[in-house]
Amino acid sequence: MITREEQRQAQEYAAQQLEAAGIVLTAEERGRIEVADLGLSDLCTWGLMLLVYVNTDRYCAKELVLYPGQTCPEHRHPPFDGTPGKEETFRCRRGEVTLHVDGVGQLVLRPGDQFTIPPDAWHWFRAGEEGAVVSEFSSTSRDELDVFSDPRVERETVVGD
Amino acid sequence: MITREEQRQAQEYAAQQLEAAGIVLTAEERGRIEVADLGLSDLCTWGLMLLVYVNTDRYCAKELVLYPGQTCPEHRHPPFDGTPGKEETFRCRRGEVTLHVDGVGQLVLRPGDQFTIPPDAWHWFRAGEEGAVVSEFSSTSRDELDVFSDPRVERETVVGD
Repeated sequence: MITREEQRQAQEYAAQQLEAAGIVLTAEERGRIEVADLGLSDLCTWGLMLLVYVNTDRYCAKELVLYPGQTCPEHRHPPFDGTPGKEETFRCRRGEVTLHVDGVGQLVLRPGDQFTIPPDAWHWFRAGEEGAVVSEFSSTSRDELDVFSDPRVERETVVGD
Repeated sequence: MITREEQRQAQEYAAQQLEAAGIVLTAEERGRIEVADLGLSDLCTWGLMLLVYVNTDRYCAKELVLYPGQTCPEHRHPPFDGTPGKEETFRCRRGEVTLHVDGVGQLVLRPGDQFTIPPDAWHWFRAGEEGAVVSEFSSTSRDELDVFSDPRVERETVVGD
């Protein structure tokens, strides 16, 4: 659970970071930046902010924004509807992100670096000390199907007062 | 056909425009920016510059860069391999682009604006007077299958001396 104020601050931080990366958003987009604490109620440490540009039944594109040192905990995107699960390419735009992919190892992505994560592979990522902006290009995204290794994780964010 | 010098200048222009849009490229990427005159030998008027980030058998992401007033002539992305053809989302990053889509009409995309072009729909686009940088998110790209309404178009660029 996060408070309304935490949500507002995180949206503002994400909008600022995206702007600093040269990314122009519409007012509508700024208002629907998703703040995901993943049910862990410790947003500065665990979770991320997301803006989905498009998610059709064939492909998806998003921006991911992380606070300095914030980690998106280990998860995988399982097969669904006869597909092998979500395949996704991370491209770092600003700051630095450490990406761990099971069977591959650990990589540090800096602006201009990218990596494609195979479907259903366990992975996690953590922003460096200046935070991170990461573009994600992928097959269709079905966040609600994500499997996290920490059983406490809830994908849907509860916002309290 | 374009000359080696036209190719070099267009790559340099595209790299500068991407940098001005806040987009960081690796040296390897700068060197493989595609310059497409579409066989019309009039690059300032017809064609575009492209940088493909990723193109898997499920999705694709590119940056498109156009000179001021440059037009990518009318074309469509036909069905292939049992798919309905390439579906693509244009998101304007810098400058302005006028996009015409058959059955939809004409739109002007400015930074932060985006539009998704249905598979196999005829479309063309032209940059405004400051040129344009457009991010393209799509299903798998097979440029060599593109169908252009102008029979003089050749998708592959010939570079002469």
